[in-house]
Amino acid sequence: MTLRCPDGPGIVHALTGVVVSLGGNITECQQFASADTGRFFTRIALVGPTRDELMGALRPVAEGLGAEFDIYGTQRPTRTLLLASKAGHCLNELLFRWRAGTLPIDVVGVMANHEVLGSLADFYGVPFTHRVVVPETKADFEAEVRRVIEERKVDLVVLARYMQILSPELCDHLAGRAINIHHSFLPGFKGANPYRQAHIRGVKLIGATAHFVTSDLDEGPIIEQNVVRVDHTMGVSKLVSKGRGQESETLAEAVRLFAEHRVLMDGNRTVIFR
Amino acid sequence: MTLRCPDGPGIVHALTGVVVSLGGNITECQQFASADTGRFFTRIALVGPTRDELMGALRPVAEGLGAEFDIYGTQRPTRTLLLASKAGHCLNELLFRWRAGTLPIDVVGVMANHEVLGSLADFYGVPFTHRVVVPETKADFEAEVRRVIEERKVDLVVLARYMQILSPELCDHLAGRAINIHHSFLPGFKGANPYRQAHIRGVKLIGATAHFVTSDLDEGPIIEQNVVRVDHTMGVSKLVSKGRGQESETLAEAVRLFAEHRVLMDGNRTVIFR
Amino acid sequence: MTLRCPDGPGIVHALTGVVVSLGGNITECQQFASADTGRFFTRIALVGPTRDELMGALRPVAEGLGAEFDIYGTQRPTRTLLLASKAGHCLNELLFRWRAGTLPIDVVGVMANHEVLGSLADFYGVPFTHRVVVPETKADFEAEVRRVIEERKVDLVVLARYMQILSPELCDHLAGRAINIHHSFLPGFKGANPYRQAHIRGVKLIGATAHFVTSDLDEGPIIEQNVVRVDHTMGVSKLVSKGRGQESETLAEAVRLFAEHRVLMDGNRTVIFR
Amino acid sequence: MTLRCPDGPGIVHALTGVVVSLGGNITECQQFASADTGRFFTRIALVGPTRDELMGALRPVAEGLGAEFDIYGTQRPTRTLLLASKAGHCLNELLFRWRAGTLPIDVVGVMANHEVLGSLADFYGVPFTHRVVVPETKADFEAEVRRVIEERKVDLVVLARYMQILSPELCDHLAGRAINIHHSFLPGFKGANPYRQAHIRGVKLIGATAHFVTSDLDEGPIIEQNVVRVDHTMGVSKLVSKGRGQESETLAEAVRLFAEHRVLMDGNRTVIFR
Repeated sequence: MTLRCPDGPGIVHALTGVVVSLGGNITECQQFASADTGRFFTRIALVGPTRDELMGALRPVAEGLGAEFDIYGTQRPTRTLLLASKAGHCLNELLFRWRAGTLPIDVVGVMANHEVLGSLADFYGVPFTHRVVVPETKADFEAEVRRVIEERKVDLVVLARYMQILSPELCDHLAGRAINIHHSFLPGFKGANPYRQAHIRGVKLIGATAHFVTSDLDEGPIIEQNVVRVDHTMGVSKLVSKGRGQESETLAEAVRLFAEHRVLMDGNRTVIFR
Repeated sequence: MTLRCPDGPGIVHALTGVVVSLGGNITECQQFASADTGRFFTRIALVGPTRDELMGALRPVAEGLGAEFDIYGTQRPTRTLLLASKAGHCLNELLFRWRAGTLPIDVVGVMANHEVLGSLADFYGVPFTHRVVVPETKADFEAEVRRVIEERKVDLVVLARYMQILSPELCDHLAGRAINIHHSFLPGFKGANPYRQAHIRGVKLIGATAHFVTSDLDEGPIIEQNVVRVDHTMGVSKLVSKGRGQESETLAEAVRLFAEHRVLMDGNRTVIFR
Repeated sequence: MTLRCPDGPGIVHALTGVVVSLGGNITECQQFASADTGRFFTRIALVGPTRDELMGALRPVAEGLGAEFDIYGTQRPTRTLLLASKAGHCLNELLFRWRAGTLPIDVVGVMANHEVLGSLADFYGVPFTHRVVVPETKADFEAEVRRVIEERKVDLVVLARYMQILSPELCDHLAGRAINIHHSFLPGFKGANPYRQAHIRGVKLIGATAHFVTSDLDEGPIIEQNVVRVDHTMGVSKLVSKGRGQESETLAEAVRLFAEHRVLMDGNRTVIFR
Repeated sequence: MTLRCPDGPGIVHALTGVVVSLGGNITECQQFASADTGRFFTRIALVGPTRDELMGALRPVAEGLGAEFDIYGTQRPTRTLLLASKAGHCLNELLFRWRAGTLPIDVVGVMANHEVLGSLADFYGVPFTHRVVVPETKADFEAEVRRVIEERKVDLVVLARYMQILSPELCDHLAGRAINIHHSFLPGFKGANPYRQAHIRGVKLIGATAHFVTSDLDEGPIIEQNVVRVDHTMGVSKLVSKGRGQESETLAEAVRLFAEHRVLMDGNRTVIFR
């Protein structure tokens, strides 16, 4: 269960009171009060009551606190749609971890603007859709993405090195439920060819950033970042090669955090309850 | 305030109830239930009630839970005694951070088995005691350490590259309130000359470990660890030089965590509420 | 080309003289003189002369220096045999990188003591051999490994989380051409269940070590190591899950270094020319 | 000795020929040919010939290669002038390491626009100059900096958290011999208050960058960078506190690399021979 409300005294006591009254037992509990926005965030993992019991008992308390909340059952994996292009390392990592049981997601489809990753999706038994995406067909493709999201009850869209920019309308539609991996340490090197930009600037570390998609390119709330050391001998293609491992790792970690409901939004920042 | 007790339902609710009843407001709150020991740990930072009010209201609740607890006022810095030898980097870092206001400690003395760091202690206005420590004088020195601890109301003893082994009796006396920095990534390279051991083994990363002192050498509960990359070109003296930065950083971070009451003991492991 | 010889003056001059005399051009050149063993190591990447021309011109010079040397053509990928068991993350990473063209290897087979990874090998078009390995069949299995190595001209054997200990005879036979991934920061937590050992000791970082296989278990020369931060909330199964990413990454990096002939042996240490 | 020239065949052979002809022995030798600028860089550490002998033998060879070169004696530490303001952590680190013998520099003075660090400079026996720097006095202060550089034969100027922007004229005058520490992972968060910028953007790692000073603010060639993990609970003041350790470490490492003549300039990038 996660909950957001204006900060004030007694919130934890009120919430834990709900759990105690239902005979539940808390297994994980984290809180954070944001000095910037004056808002309070909490994530409580518990066992005992059913989802409906908890919902019924929590609603009046949440109303009193002016809170929004969500209750998730651990039985239901996060239904995930993956968008990809030609580079397969992020897709491969997500599909492998899902099948290995280390990512609590259910991949309901892969949609791509190139054909090449179809066999990988097939291997993992995931429906693969390939459409050429050019300016004239982009609106159609995005409409199909929306259809798939609705039909397959998608909770999360992951841009696994999908190299196209989504329309502002789709970005808004997916607010808070679409994650992108950008192959730089944001806010450095936004936009196209970040490894080329990194090489030109001569940085000594290259990064990867998993963030929520917003209509403001590469400016969405950051979920996870990593860096790896590079040196002057590495040209652009070596940076590309060197960076792949951390792109896959960073994106997979962000997806895990989201799928375990550990990511909350505090304005343009994220609260991460690890 | 920190509290340890057997795990069970309703603990957080009971504790937050105490805070609410006193009109207090919680600013930080962390919990952990150990699957290994079946014990529950919490750290709650709060504003409002006085120490005595909180003590009075908490005692009956804690008794009901079978809990031990401590209440700390933020006004009182952790009174700290530093033991040192010849290498000054850790001592220098701790003294600098203390004076810069980034470590909530009060350094009440430096005791050393060499004279060379006396001027550094003087510069920071700290009483410096120098005693030759050889087998015949060790018992006297340790007795003096105990006297200083008692007279100056010392909460924490830090072995800042103090290269002597404390007697088992002193280790026991200081259980849970003495921190050592070992210049390896424990449990690798225990004992003497860890950098030489690391060079012989050809490791690609060297480490530093801050841990509680116990009579079992280099086996105490670990508080903080770091590593830094090395390569085949570095001989022992370069490893020594390369490792200094992280020794200072690791020890200073462990002291900060302790002084902010973020370190609790779960058997031979530590619970760190960051 | 890589070369090892006793250290002395004029070696680089002599070697570069060979290259100049053949009209070649050096693209990469690294040297290291070991203070521990008194030996000199170099790796020179060059374009121009054929392998035979270089061999002919280099031999008399190398004899004068008392040197051993190897000349590799970049056209010939390192022929690699993978041994696996049930956990697929390392195998998956190596196969993916190979097919993506970022590892200069040629995977000539996967041999496993369980069946489960067969479909993954199939997907990548690699011959898969499955044999039950129990004490009575171990000698047969190892004999088959040797046959495959000979028949398929294998340069490198990789134990990609192959959970069996090789016989001392096979270890000796594979000296300097078999790489294992151990899921701890060696020399800490040798042997079985390193994550359980790490949990019991309460370390704050967990590691992975890629090293050459020797008959002395987990004591072979180290090629690459990494660590990742963990905390008190993580039980053994979370450590296992958290460690997978770095096991794959560490092993793949070690295989790359070997396949690019960047790893030389200096006693029980490695010289790595990155 | 370091040397830069247009790339071509036979350079290493020619240079090592000079060393051999003088009976010298090479202890370290690194090369790099830049694909971007077509230039060749080398650093050769050797023992045997005197500086004058080497100079005499090298000059004709270097002229043939169109090369610039420098020869440094290890006896002569890099003469260093430190500029500081109020924050003492970087200054403290540099002075400590210098006195501990781990930085091959000679600190010839500290100049500051505040008085507070005077006692620290005194403790280390370094002349301390304090001047109020406001727009009207800036030209005078910079003139004095130039005088000190000339009189005390300064090789390197280090801005150890000196919070003023140098004039373009002084930047040009100090090209390639002034190092600044910027408290962000450049190119992110240039300019004022980088920790505040980092907090607003919600990054998950904060960085520090040591770079050469140029008239283009925070755009000079990067020498060294590091990052440290942060989380949503840390406000600006915690980021400031958390970042100090890596600022000191990053700057000290950059100064070491420069003082050991391991930093060469390849356009707006640095070549670092570690």
